[in-house]
Amino acid sequence: MTDPNDPDLPTFADVEDAAERLRGRAVMTPLLESPLLNERIGGRVLVKAETLQRTGSFKFRGAYNRISRLSPAERKRGVVAYSSGNHAQGVAAAARLVGALAVIVMPADAPRIKIDGTRALGAEVVLYDRGREVREAVGERIAKERGLTMVPPYDDPRVIAGQGTAGLELAAQAEAADAELDAVLSPCGGGGLIAGCALALSQRSPDTAVYAVEPEDFDDTTRSLAAGERREVRPGAYSFCDALLSPTPGKLTFAINRRLLAGGLVVSDDEVARAMRAAFLHLKLVLEPGGATALAALLAGGYDGRGKTVAVIASGGNVDPQTFAAALERAAGHDPSS
Amino acid sequence: MTDPNDPDLPTFADVEDAAERLRGRAVMTPLLESPLLNERIGGRVLVKAETLQRTGSFKFRGAYNRISRLSPAERKRGVVAYSSGNHAQGVAAAARLVGALAVIVMPADAPRIKIDGTRALGAEVVLYDRGREVREAVGERIAKERGLTMVPPYDDPRVIAGQGTAGLELAAQAEAADAELDAVLSPCGGGGLIAGCALALSQRSPDTAVYAVEPEDFDDTTRSLAAGERREVRPGAYSFCDALLSPTPGKLTFAINRRLLAGGLVVSDDEVARAMRAAFLHLKLVLEPGGATALAALLAGGYDGRGKTVAVIASGGNVDPQTFAAALERAAGHDPSS
Repeated sequence: MTDPNDPDLPTFADVEDAAERLRGRAVMTPLLESPLLNERIGGRVLVKAETLQRTGSFKFRGAYNRISRLSPAERKRGVVAYSSGNHAQGVAAAARLVGALAVIVMPADAPRIKIDGTRALGAEVVLYDRGREVREAVGERIAKERGLTMVPPYDDPRVIAGQGTAGLELAAQAEAADAELDAVLSPCGGGGLIAGCALALSQRSPDTAVYAVEPEDFDDTTRSLAAGERREVRPGAYSFCDALLSPTPGKLTFAINRRLLAGGLVVSDDEVARAMRAAFLHLKLVLEPGGATALAALLAGGYDGRGKTVAVIASGGNVDPQTFAAALERAAGHDPSS
Repeated sequence: MTDPNDPDLPTFADVEDAAERLRGRAVMTPLLESPLLNERIGGRVLVKAETLQRTGSFKFRGAYNRISRLSPAERKRGVVAYSSGNHAQGVAAAARLVGALAVIVMPADAPRIKIDGTRALGAEVVLYDRGREVREAVGERIAKERGLTMVPPYDDPRVIAGQGTAGLELAAQAEAADAELDAVLSPCGGGGLIAGCALALSQRSPDTAVYAVEPEDFDDTTRSLAAGERREVRPGAYSFCDALLSPTPGKLTFAINRRLLAGGLVVSDDEVARAMRAAFLHLKLVLEPGGATALAALLAGGYDGRGKTVAVIASGGNVDPQTFAAALERAAGHDPSS
């Protein structure tokens, strides 16, 4: 099943097919609602808790959809992936489920919880120096030397379709909760999650506006959407949202996103910390910085939720205890109910 | 519907009736599973996340089951409850849903998140000094003066039946996950949650052993079960599990628990802190100390889960950020995967 305009792009049917494949493998994560959060926004807020997904982020969905389709020969040799941590764990868990070796190329300064989590899932971790080496090059060298299949973090039709199953679930759960979604806000790094979800929502909730939310220094998708072509982040960009530090939108993801998204929003690290604190207080969920950007945009008013019904995707919760405690502390005094 | 041996005791039919009443009001909380937690225990572990219930603990279930049955005249006057915080928020939320006033008697040293949360739900909070006043007396005086209906925290048939709906869900969710439960572990204060759940499980999963888990200084139910009659905690008892500081089992709850429970287990505050850290790392859930005792008993080996299928109830997540951060820090170095 392919897009008639671009044979490389996944379609809605691919997302449905991925959902079939993930049944009983991925967690159908809950869509949560907090009356206090609704009051604070002045609208209705639904939170898709992908933090509760296997490996603590949505990434297992795409990884399993790709890896479960390896040929027997490919499976026997194994896979390689590069990732700051969430894709790493998703690939490691998916590879283990199908009995394949996984080699993961990770930056040496990735959060320890992500490196440890990847190793605990049985993967071989190769660390690289973010300042001196290019992760794609390291990954491709290992793939070639050892005959491994590369599992890209976002620019792959099967990976995008897998992530889109979160959007399929979201649409069905919103309908079951009598919620007509005005908007869906999703964290955005390379754009795989939001591209897949936008594909799902374009068929299952076509009147819903879908927004990408990025850290303010990593606003490549926001600026690319405005420009109509792919742009890069500016030199020296910094954010503590370690999961969202991609320098430019993916080729495939942007081809989907420019067609289906309503636009991009940006949030500061302070706003993200406040969203982490709000999720702690009102939802009892552990959100990592990158997983909290969509909620942050709603709480900070980048998207005005008054009188609206809005779903935000909480995309991941893999954060070190120290970083988490520091974020809660940083946001103290900003939350009206604490 | 009454127990033939004691007309005051709730029955399985009362739990089913409560489930009907709570449909669409209470959250059907997910039963979560983590492959890494399973590996650590060497068995299968399912976590009933009542932290994701409305108001952040299971208490809404019992409160709504009681308050929604007020007569029109009672509803017009309102309700009063005494509580360290979770029952307070459950009563406040339930009263608000039916349009009744709620007055809550809380200790002045209750966690701030619980006092603030109760006020945010529209309740009137009356603080008392835990060292100089008896909460039951304060609550009863207010009830008499203002004509309010008392909603007891656990020793009430409707409250027990409401809490039992968590057990009904748990049994159905375990069955859907192909899990035959060897045991269910539940935090225990006054015993309402576990009594209700034991009623539900006695019909829906009769071969499952149900254990109460208490802080080691507040082992009144554990000792009462062993003695066959109600015992009190020893003078000077201390635990940071603020939700579980009841001095003796309830009359109704103990009548049920002595008949249906397999026994009691105790955990230290250090073991509880380690469970809070494990839930943070593996489940991405915020657990308050009292909500983490059941998981603590499993992780510390008080219940040996090797080769077993065990469900633990994570009963609440209302904890101040500082207390939470301190617990994660206190447990650092004890978790094999961090």
